Amino acid sequence: MKKEINFYPVILAGGRGTRFWPLSRKKRAKQLLALDGKETMIQQTLARLLPLASARKFWIITNQDLRPAIAKQLPRVPKNQLIAEPIARNTAPAIGLAAFLLLRQYPSAVLGLFPSDHVIADEKRFRETLQRGIKLAAAGANIVVLGIRPTRAETGYGYIEAGGAYQGEALRVRRFTEKPDATKADEFVNAGNYFWNSGMFLWSARTLADALKEHLPVTATLLEEIAATFGTNRFPATFRKLYPKCENISVDYAVLEPRSAKGEEAGNIFCLPADFGWNDLGSWTALHEHQTAKSSPPEENVMVSSGTFLLNARGNYVHAPGKFVAAVGVTDLVVVETPDALLITTRQQAQDVGKIVKYLDEKKMTKLT
Amino acid sequence: MKKEINFYPVILAGGRGTRFWPLSRKKRAKQLLALDGKETMIQQTLARLLPLASARKFWIITNQDLRPAIAKQLPRVPKNQLIAEPIARNTAPAIGLAAFLLLRQYPSAVLGLFPSDHVIADEKRFRETLQRGIKLAAAGANIVVLGIRPTRAETGYGYIEAGGAYQGEALRVRRFTEKPDATKADEFVNAGNYFWNSGMFLWSARTLADALKEHLPVTATLLEEIAATFGTNRFPATFRKLYPKCENISVDYAVLEPRSAKGEEAGNIFCLPADFGWNDLGSWTALHEHQTAKSSPPEENVMVSSGTFLLNARGNYVHAPGKFVAAVGVTDLVVVETPDALLITTRQQAQDVGKIVKYLDEKKMTKLT
Repeated sequence: MKKEINFYPVILAGGRGTRFWPLSRKKRAKQLLALDGKETMIQQTLARLLPLASARKFWIITNQDLRPAIAKQLPRVPKNQLIAEPIARNTAPAIGLAAFLLLRQYPSAVLGLFPSDHVIADEKRFRETLQRGIKLAAAGANIVVLGIRPTRAETGYGYIEAGGAYQGEALRVRRFTEKPDATKADEFVNAGNYFWNSGMFLWSARTLADALKEHLPVTATLLEEIAATFGTNRFPATFRKLYPKCENISVDYAVLEPRSAKGEEAGNIFCLPADFGWNDLGSWTALHEHQTAKSSPPEENVMVSSGTFLLNARGNYVHAPGKFVAAVGVTDLVVVETPDALLITTRQQAQDVGKIVKYLDEKKMTKLT
Repeated sequence: MKKEINFYPVILAGGRGTRFWPLSRKKRAKQLLALDGKETMIQQTLARLLPLASARKFWIITNQDLRPAIAKQLPRVPKNQLIAEPIARNTAPAIGLAAFLLLRQYPSAVLGLFPSDHVIADEKRFRETLQRGIKLAAAGANIVVLGIRPTRAETGYGYIEAGGAYQGEALRVRRFTEKPDATKADEFVNAGNYFWNSGMFLWSARTLADALKEHLPVTATLLEEIAATFGTNRFPATFRKLYPKCENISVDYAVLEPRSAKGEEAGNIFCLPADFGWNDLGSWTALHEHQTAKSSPPEENVMVSSGTFLLNARGNYVHAPGKFVAAVGVTDLVVVETPDALLITTRQQAQDVGKIVKYLDEKKMTKLT
C-alpha cells in the first residue's frame, strides 16, 4: 500500500502554542509536550501515521528554536527532512516548499499535511479516512480536506461549506470561510453542511505546486529556486535569503478560498467528514474537557500530581507533576506549576493565557517565554 | 531594669500549626516559619522581648520534633533552657514546669508566658504594657493577662470578662470563658467589657507554683519532682517518666477559670488591655488580611513570588517563592506551593486546611506532614 500510493506526510510544527504557558515555551512548544498520554503531541502525530508511511518519508516544517528538540523526539525521521524556516511565513510557503522538494524526487507523491499538536481518539478510523483521501488526491488535480463535524458554535476555527455529494463519503466543497462571529458560527452549526477546517489536507505534490504557481506565482518561483538547491551546500544560504521574500499567507487564504470561488465543480476541492474523535486541544480548558471525557475523573477534577486530597472541589485542572495536590472548596480552576512559574486561572479565562506570554515578551523576560 | 524586675520570658513553642500546611510541617511548625517578615515567628517573639530580658533568661517549652530547629533559630538561648516535652500536656504542666524550674534559682522571678507564633505591630507599646504588667505581677499574688479588644465576633478565642478598674489601665477580671458560640461572641463584642485571651500572662514563679499546688496538686508535685532533678543526669529519665503523668489541661481551665470564680476581688487576676496591633495569624486567611492591612498591595493580592502578572485578579494570597506567578480572572484564592506539595483553596475555606493534615496523618503519609 505504502509504495503504491506514494504517500508523504508533511507535519507542520512551527507553532508556539502560547496558550499552554507556563508548560509551553519558545523552545518547548505545545507539540513537544506530552499533554495527553506518555508521548508528546508530535510523537503521537508521527506514530498514528506510521502504518501509512515509514519514518523516512516524513517531512517536518518547523523553526530554529524547535528543531533540536524535534530531532530528539523523532529520531527516526531523516535529519535533512527536518526543515527549520529562517522566518515564519504561514502555511502557504511552508507546505509549498514541501511540495517542490518532493516533486523533484517523487513526481507522483501525494502529500498529507498535518498539524503536529492535535489529538485523535480513533486512529484506525483516522487512517481509513486518510486512505480514502489519498486515493482521491492521487486521482487527479483534486484537493482533499478533512472536515470536522462541528459540535458547538466555535468562533476560533475556519469553516468549510459542503455542497453536493461526490463519491462515498466525500462531499464537494462550496466555500471556505474565515473564523466567523458568534452569530455566523451558530448559523453554520445549525445549517448541517458546515465543517470545521481541521488543517489536514491531502493533495498531490503536482497539484499543490500548480496551485501555488497559479495563485502565488512569485512565492512559487522563490520556493522552486530554494528546492532546487536542496541537498547542496548552497541550500542553507539560499533558504535564508529567499524564504523571507515569500508571502506571509495561509494556504486557506492564498489557494483554497480563491479556488473554491471558482465554483463547486471547477474547484475540485473535496471534504471528507472526519468522525475519528478529533480535538485540537486549543487551551488548558480544551485539554481539561478532553481528559474529562476520556477518563471521567471524580467530580471532573483532572489532576496531574503524585497524589491528591479533594474536598468540595469540582471541575478543576491541576498540573503539578511530582507534587501532592490538595484542592479544597475550589471550582473550575486551572492551576499549572513548572519549576519557574505558576499559573492560576479559571477554565473560562484560560484563553487569556496568551496575554501573559505577550507581557513576558514585551518585558523581555525571555527565560519565562 | 532587667535585674530589678527579674523578668523571665517563657515561650510556648510546642504547637504544630497545621493550618499553614503545606508550608508548616511537624518538624517545621508555624512558629519556625518566616510568614511575615524575614525572621521566623519565634525569632520575632524573642527579638521583641530582648530589650526586657537578655537571651540567657529565656525558656522555651517545645517538643522533640521542633527542638533542633529552634536551637538553630535561637542560638543565643542556652540549650538546657530549650525544654522538649516527652509528650504534649497542654499549657498548665508546661508553664508549671517553667515556674518550678525558675523558683529554685530565682525565688522572686516574674514569668512572662508568650505564644511563639503571634505578630505584634507596635513593639514599643507592647513592651510598655509588659512593663506595667511585670510590676503588677511582682507586687503580690497577682496574675496578669493581656487582653485584646475584640474587633469581630470571633468564636475561635477564649474571652475575658473585665470587671472594675484597678489602677492605671488595669482592670479586674470577672470571668474567663471558653470559646463562645456565634451568638455569645456577638454579645461579648457588643458588651464592651470583654477581651480576647491573648495567651500572654505575667505572674511570679511563686504565685504560679502556689496556684498549681492549689488547683492541680498531683501535677504540681510531679512537676516539682522533675524540676528538682534539673541540671543532673537524672533529669531526662525523670522528665520522660513523670511528665506524661501530669494532667493534660490548659492553664485557663485548670487555674484561671476556678480562680476567677472566687470573685473579682479574691481572684486577684488583672487584665491589661493590649492595644499594640496583635494578630495570632491563625490561618492563611488571617495572614492575607494582616499583610493586606500592612502593605495595601494592588487589588489586595498578596504574592510571595519572584514576579507577577495579574489580570482580573483580586484578593488572592499566593505563596510560591522563586516562581513567576500569573493570576488571571481569579478572586479570593489561597495557593501555596512547596517543593513537594501544592495547596489550592479559598480564603473562606482555608480554615479546613487542617483536614488535609488529618487525612495525611491517617494515611501515614509522614513525608507530607
